[in-house]
Amino acid sequence: MGTGKIAAQAAHAAVMGAQRTKERKPEWFEAWFEGGQAKVVVKVKDMEELMEVRMRAESLTLPVVQIQDSGLTQIPPGTITCIGIGPAPSEVIDRVTNDLKLL
Amino acid sequence: MGTGKIAAQAAHAAVMGAQRTKERKPEWFEAWFEGGQAKVVVKVKDMEELMEVRMRAESLTLPVVQIQDSGLTQIPPGTITCIGIGPAPSEVIDRVTNDLKLL
Repeated sequence: MGTGKIAAQAAHAAVMGAQRTKERKPEWFEAWFEGGQAKVVVKVKDMEELMEVRMRAESLTLPVVQIQDSGLTQIPPGTITCIGIGPAPSEVIDRVTNDLKLL
Repeated sequence: MGTGKIAAQAAHAAVMGAQRTKERKPEWFEAWFEGGQAKVVVKVKDMEELMEVRMRAESLTLPVVQIQDSGLTQIPPGTITCIGIGPAPSEVIDRVTNDLKLL
């Protein structure tokens, strides 16, 4: 994926994740929304690692959204491009993502 | 900026833009949110062009958000990194962004 396509996937995850957390953990959403809306974009090496990260996040009851691309350009329809974790307290998210490298 | 940093800026713009449109034009927000949440990431050559695009968007009464980075990494604090236009009907946004190249 090109840079703009990657940026769009991160933006999908951010909007969906914000919405999910707002519904499920409004106090987490408010703290994040009013507190600078930090976002950290990290990478995994393959789909297997992405699913491991997802399971770890879900086991800590963190809100997770999974982004599938509509595939009009660049990649096949339905490809999972990224997941979004949170917004949530950073000390909880760090337990899942701390070992991952920044994109 | 690195790819992850660029992705985070686009994500900031998407979340803030969605929020802004939800408040100001809820019918535009709903149509976008339920209709696939399309996002297109385009580029400008410099800050002057970014401000021109912003003014054009505002002159069409499109919702515009401007993203400033907190500057903890990579770039000076307060740097304007991008703007978000919409969500709004694509035929209106296209009048502003149609000539810009995809990032």
